[in-house]
Amino acid sequence: MECSDYGLTRTLERDNLNLNPLQRGGVLPAAARKALYEFGDGYSVCDYCEGCLDQIPRPHVNSFLDDLADFIKADAVRTVHGAREGKFAVMHALCEEGDTIVVDGNAHYTTHLAAERNGLEIVEVPSTGHPDYEIKPETYREVLEETLEETEVKLAVLTHVDGNYGNLTDAAAIAGICRELGVPLLLNCAYSMGRMPVELKTLKVDFVVGSGHKSMAASGPIGVLGMSAEWEDLLLKRSPRHEKKEVELLGCTSRGAPLATLMASLPYVRERVSRWDEEVERTRYLVSELEKMDGVRQIGLRPKEHDLVRFETPVFHEIASSHPRRGFFLYEELKKRRIVGIRRGQTRWFKCSVYGMTDRQVQYIIDSFREIVEENRD
Amino acid sequence: MECSDYGLTRTLERDNLNLNPLQRGGVLPAAARKALYEFGDGYSVCDYCEGCLDQIPRPHVNSFLDDLADFIKADAVRTVHGAREGKFAVMHALCEEGDTIVVDGNAHYTTHLAAERNGLEIVEVPSTGHPDYEIKPETYREVLEETLEETEVKLAVLTHVDGNYGNLTDAAAIAGICRELGVPLLLNCAYSMGRMPVELKTLKVDFVVGSGHKSMAASGPIGVLGMSAEWEDLLLKRSPRHEKKEVELLGCTSRGAPLATLMASLPYVRERVSRWDEEVERTRYLVSELEKMDGVRQIGLRPKEHDLVRFETPVFHEIASSHPRRGFFLYEELKKRRIVGIRRGQTRWFKCSVYGMTDRQVQYIIDSFREIVEENRD
Repeated sequence: MECSDYGLTRTLERDNLNLNPLQRGGVLPAAARKALYEFGDGYSVCDYCEGCLDQIPRPHVNSFLDDLADFIKADAVRTVHGAREGKFAVMHALCEEGDTIVVDGNAHYTTHLAAERNGLEIVEVPSTGHPDYEIKPETYREVLEETLEETEVKLAVLTHVDGNYGNLTDAAAIAGICRELGVPLLLNCAYSMGRMPVELKTLKVDFVVGSGHKSMAASGPIGVLGMSAEWEDLLLKRSPRHEKKEVELLGCTSRGAPLATLMASLPYVRERVSRWDEEVERTRYLVSELEKMDGVRQIGLRPKEHDLVRFETPVFHEIASSHPRRGFFLYEELKKRRIVGIRRGQTRWFKCSVYGMTDRQVQYIIDSFREIVEENRD
Repeated sequence: MECSDYGLTRTLERDNLNLNPLQRGGVLPAAARKALYEFGDGYSVCDYCEGCLDQIPRPHVNSFLDDLADFIKADAVRTVHGAREGKFAVMHALCEEGDTIVVDGNAHYTTHLAAERNGLEIVEVPSTGHPDYEIKPETYREVLEETLEETEVKLAVLTHVDGNYGNLTDAAAIAGICRELGVPLLLNCAYSMGRMPVELKTLKVDFVVGSGHKSMAASGPIGVLGMSAEWEDLLLKRSPRHEKKEVELLGCTSRGAPLATLMASLPYVRERVSRWDEEVERTRYLVSELEKMDGVRQIGLRPKEHDLVRFETPVFHEIASSHPRRGFFLYEELKKRRIVGIRRGQTRWFKCSVYGMTDRQVQYIIDSFREIVEENRD
């Protein structure tokens, strides 16, 4: 038995242009690679722990968490294992089995699973459907009001940017509605925190969760849970038996390399967030250039406010119908050009992102798609 | 802001002989270091995921989990974020709020926290106290029988090897008692799985949890949850809404580098477990040599059956009382000799482990302790 027995290489995905939106925001900068080297072993961040992960002085987890709280403008922040584990913790602390929560119709499956694991009833705010899939604040209000007529709503959840269409929701407006109706709001920022500005106090939400591996240039799994001061006592309640340990976090969460990489990446992440406008511009350019081809159409809200783009691509589906390699042709043509991240066999539609790429790389991708159409169309 | 702002180096702990038991079993072999390099970025293991982490074909998570199940002789196995998260998941699946569980008196604090987070009542099986702190099967039986007279017991938890004394419990005997009394048993193997042989079917327990970062040469945080076939349906229940996703695991758990390192390390871990007898011999040698000094005494069961050793060390405490550096002298004298892992200021007692060290390194440590006593005693 050797390491290679399990196919533990990732050269294809690391060395090529990867369009998979899931992979764009989690690429480590050099500082985080160094931290990974230093803190690769087991319980590496725990050498100087006195019982509280968030108070570890060396490495400076304590001052890092202060900086992180400042970055997302939260009163308190903790690391968790990922956005889903953060959502589970909030639901677990606020709700009892059988309680009802309201969730937007574009929610990630992990929002549903966190609710199911807590035994909660989910009431959904529908999107406008094809082609925009918009979550409108007025619809959120209607559903919330209707639900409140029938039962108590312990928590509202909103997906800041969803993973299917890359739609940015109006979190501030929906937070206002929730506040007016007395329901705390949890904002799922897995696709936003670390890419674009996310500030709890500006949006006036009660909780935010973020994902280190998805959008904060960290090695997975790690997430961020931020909250406003009023929820600290409930969510960070300590064990009656072990007074330093927070029960909802099982004492401590991310004890190792993921935390070290999240720490090392924070300065880099802060800086890239300040350049978010450029990323949006680059994405809009990609959309406008690809839509110049017949049979390519961006789905979701327009103009794009996020780097995750969903395209309907009948042009590729038509080519596939008569191509000797059938649906595999697109993946294979892209791979020849050192572009990866579109699933093998997929031609009818795809999601992609050029987040973090240079103008030249984006142009190369646009030219490659054009070339593939030109070379393969009858 | 730079990486170094958070003190993200670990040279002292990496380059020297580290006696901290927490750190001995999580040191990565070369293959795992390579996997860390390959899978350092964000969601790195998810490139070829079709919706189930445990079914990912590339890297071969699917066949790895088969090998892991075979290694610990479990019917089903999943990775979790750590032993504590595994314990929480088992308790969450089996128990309702207010239920009672029985736990041994040497349990790790995370067993208590997992129970507290689930709202469970804990009934404790006391150890024999100083100096052995033994958990006797007959005491386990007494407490379990007494508790069963008063209430239902949904789960029994036993610490296979505890983190304070390194005592190995008689898991097979206690499993027999639990089976006889109809109570499922969860064995916490955070300090055993990956160091010594742990086989679910040999011990006849219902669940085992292990810790990748503590004892399986993996980068943290990652754990292992193994179970017998009868519990699979309950613990790995799928979401009614997302049919590929297991609810208790929130869809998937360790999505990144920790999993890649656990996979890479399995062949190494299998091999080292086969040499467990040598480790025990080395530990016993350490104990017998250090106890030759007046004022050093091993606490916990004798002879040692595990590498974690707790010593009472009045000899160092006496030196500290008149030493110009007071309690810091021991840490400083050891550090001069490139030995770390004993807490600064601690002299009355300490825990240590020489797991994974060579005979020569162990002899060097013994000689160093002797030298420190000789040089510093009045």
